[in-house]
Amino acid sequence: MSGHSNSEAKSLPIAKALQAAVPGLRVEWAAESREAHSRDHTEDLQFLPDVVVFPTSTEEVSAVMQWAHAQGVPVTASGAWTGLSGGALPVRGGIGLSTKRLNRIIRIDELHHQLVVQPGVIVQEMQEAVQDKGLFYAVDPASRGTCTIGGNLAENSGGPRAVKYGVTKDWVLNLEVVLADGTVIRTGADTLKNSTGYNLTQLMVGSEGTLGIITEATLKLLPWPRFNALLLVPFTDPADACRAVAGLFMDGNQPSALEFMERSAIELAMDFTGDRQLPLADDTAAHLLIEVDGFREEDLMPQLERIAQSLERFHAGEPLLAMDEAGKNQLWNLRRKVGEAVKAHSTYKEEDTVVPRGHLPELLSAVKRIGAEHGFDSVCYGHAGDGNLHVNILRGVMPEGQWNDTLPDAIRELFREVIHLGGTLSGEHGIGWVQKPFMDLRFSEAELALQRRIKDAFDPVHILNPDKILPEAGQR
Amino acid sequence: MSGHSNSEAKSLPIAKALQAAVPGLRVEWAAESREAHSRDHTEDLQFLPDVVVFPTSTEEVSAVMQWAHAQGVPVTASGAWTGLSGGALPVRGGIGLSTKRLNRIIRIDELHHQLVVQPGVIVQEMQEAVQDKGLFYAVDPASRGTCTIGGNLAENSGGPRAVKYGVTKDWVLNLEVVLADGTVIRTGADTLKNSTGYNLTQLMVGSEGTLGIITEATLKLLPWPRFNALLLVPFTDPADACRAVAGLFMDGNQPSALEFMERSAIELAMDFTGDRQLPLADDTAAHLLIEVDGFREEDLMPQLERIAQSLERFHAGEPLLAMDEAGKNQLWNLRRKVGEAVKAHSTYKEEDTVVPRGHLPELLSAVKRIGAEHGFDSVCYGHAGDGNLHVNILRGVMPEGQWNDTLPDAIRELFREVIHLGGTLSGEHGIGWVQKPFMDLRFSEAELALQRRIKDAFDPVHILNPDKILPEAGQR
Repeated sequence: MSGHSNSEAKSLPIAKALQAAVPGLRVEWAAESREAHSRDHTEDLQFLPDVVVFPTSTEEVSAVMQWAHAQGVPVTASGAWTGLSGGALPVRGGIGLSTKRLNRIIRIDELHHQLVVQPGVIVQEMQEAVQDKGLFYAVDPASRGTCTIGGNLAENSGGPRAVKYGVTKDWVLNLEVVLADGTVIRTGADTLKNSTGYNLTQLMVGSEGTLGIITEATLKLLPWPRFNALLLVPFTDPADACRAVAGLFMDGNQPSALEFMERSAIELAMDFTGDRQLPLADDTAAHLLIEVDGFREEDLMPQLERIAQSLERFHAGEPLLAMDEAGKNQLWNLRRKVGEAVKAHSTYKEEDTVVPRGHLPELLSAVKRIGAEHGFDSVCYGHAGDGNLHVNILRGVMPEGQWNDTLPDAIRELFREVIHLGGTLSGEHGIGWVQKPFMDLRFSEAELALQRRIKDAFDPVHILNPDKILPEAGQR
Repeated sequence: MSGHSNSEAKSLPIAKALQAAVPGLRVEWAAESREAHSRDHTEDLQFLPDVVVFPTSTEEVSAVMQWAHAQGVPVTASGAWTGLSGGALPVRGGIGLSTKRLNRIIRIDELHHQLVVQPGVIVQEMQEAVQDKGLFYAVDPASRGTCTIGGNLAENSGGPRAVKYGVTKDWVLNLEVVLADGTVIRTGADTLKNSTGYNLTQLMVGSEGTLGIITEATLKLLPWPRFNALLLVPFTDPADACRAVAGLFMDGNQPSALEFMERSAIELAMDFTGDRQLPLADDTAAHLLIEVDGFREEDLMPQLERIAQSLERFHAGEPLLAMDEAGKNQLWNLRRKVGEAVKAHSTYKEEDTVVPRGHLPELLSAVKRIGAEHGFDSVCYGHAGDGNLHVNILRGVMPEGQWNDTLPDAIRELFREVIHLGGTLSGEHGIGWVQKPFMDLRFSEAELALQRRIKDAFDPVHILNPDKILPEAGQR
């Protein structure tokens, strides 16, 4: 699927005008550069920008926005293209603004346990830089080796550790943002508490580049809990695994990760990675992957023992314990590769469903029921401790007409069920482009209109990542 | 100081029209009722509403707003009048909307560790109700025995435990809000993660009733860490106490409270409460009050020992340890009563300064320097672990002219210093009415204009708590 409404002929005049308006700015408009900035990890969508710019400073971002605002040209910021909702796709062409060269760790503030970064910094590099100082940036998306903090801020990314440490929004103190007209603002302060005006910081996080371009972020850090251990726990009934999730918390456990994987998820990951060492009994239908962490090695075993005890009443099988780095890496690698493995296996659509975690059993059974009714298989896995289940719908042998035309009805049915269970459309991937048609399920027309007025307050001419998140009034 | 621009004669027609428009609504307009809804705990300000309404349901709130919106009459919501920035004062008269009868705990959800409440619930009642189920609502403002959760949400309240558990905003999942025109919306979902549209939840928290009326809140809970212990640590030099604050965190400690009190703060509290049992050496100039908590009694002593060790290099005196309820209550009671004690002692103004905690020594010395230059004494105390210092400026013998006319310049100088140190105007009390003249120090005209556009997006006719937070364009 692709959108080529923007023509090559538009590129050169925009590029030349930008170069004249912003001396020194790197501007690319060759076909290969536009292609390289047209796809993310969401299905097989492609939208080409007319030009791609690579600013190296807030001032350059501001100058680009001033020009774009005056000309009415769309600007869509991007990081490392690991997004899963099409948030960074330039669906209306215009300027693709790469944050790749805004990639400096500006300051690690050990006195205050804070970190100041530009948006193009890779999350894992940031994590490792602060760990060298005994500090910890807790948010840990599966794509951490490639994704950027700017993308994480735009989508309010989560990951396995969110169950103990929260998501990206919970670690942001202050942002520097370039507004649609090029104005540079600060949203908060570098303080742990702030009751000074509207919370612009939290309004920016998760707004997917539609309200402004984040050019700098002050993040909170923690002391690094450097010890952890993993349990892989098999279940013969996936519903038991789902029930165990809320049960663990009701018993007072606080794991640092609590992941659910259907058998098919771990099988696909084994095929994809070629790692078949893991014992997988014939009657295992699902696993929980459970991590505990602590500041001292002796903090781990009491937590593991308590968890094992809680699990007993949910018919768990014999757990596999990994305490050494090799064993833990093997398990985490399988878990992290599930997404890529599904993508390599079949055309698919991923729904980032989230419900209160006690309703996971009903959610899983609704997925399977709707799949049976509409003729699709699904691979379900995800951050069960947060109630966040990634539902991967496999195309398999489904004809293209059905895939494109009637599957959306099945997805609507699924989201209706999610909302009925107290959940919502996206836990951590964002709405972006692909989930926009479902926004009417969660939000009333008044709630959507309010969000449109907020968009207008920031971006009256709609040049910032246009046509994302919010459907037009009266449309899906 | 008071504002009586609204006349008695306006009350009756508004009351009669409201009673006709909203059958069953309790409406009061007698002088004593208007008086009773005209003052909070901020200095000695008074502003009378024309009428006071006491809705008992979201539907009644919605009907009041529909009427007010159609008539262009201001509506200012209030809780228990414990606010410290004048946020609930009806400065333009109109309707005072009391949340006193919206006081139901709707649901304690043990399966999901969640709590659903109406805004008029007293925070301590809520805390005790969930503790009965082994659960914990962590935010614990000094006024918890009287303040309401609605007021806490409006001001983004903090309190001593914020240093470990965060402030009100960190525990809110979802809000029901009545908009200016009476429309009822839901801001989020009852899920731990949510990347679905703009973060309206966090935009509402701390917006001080200027964007909508919160009628229901879903809050996150934790398992209750039921064991805790307190240390009262004397210092001969307040700067040492301030330096110890960041030092404790750099050493990896995580206290559940870390409070600073100047000698004068604890002396005033002793006078006020009549509790003079506490040993207070002649050379003690300041205290840190440090709490640790845990799920087991044996979790406490290792934390206390580590803290005591950290404190050594900051010239701390002999700490007083309280592990029994009586001892802890005595110390907390003195700390909690400082605010009232200062108020009983002198006319005062309180500034809710907040800086990155490592800059507390510079902040304290700036307060004293500015006080010496402008001729005022101050009592400083507060949530040092968050860098949140309550600066109480005492009028003492200062002539009224100087107090009213030139003291604001001294406060501006103080806030300039706070901002220079990376801090901001309010850590937990909000801007409300009294700090509005200082907003230009923190925010550029573009940043204020953006916030005004957000206000307009929610409340185009400016009936919701008008004239709060944001100064008019071009004005202080």
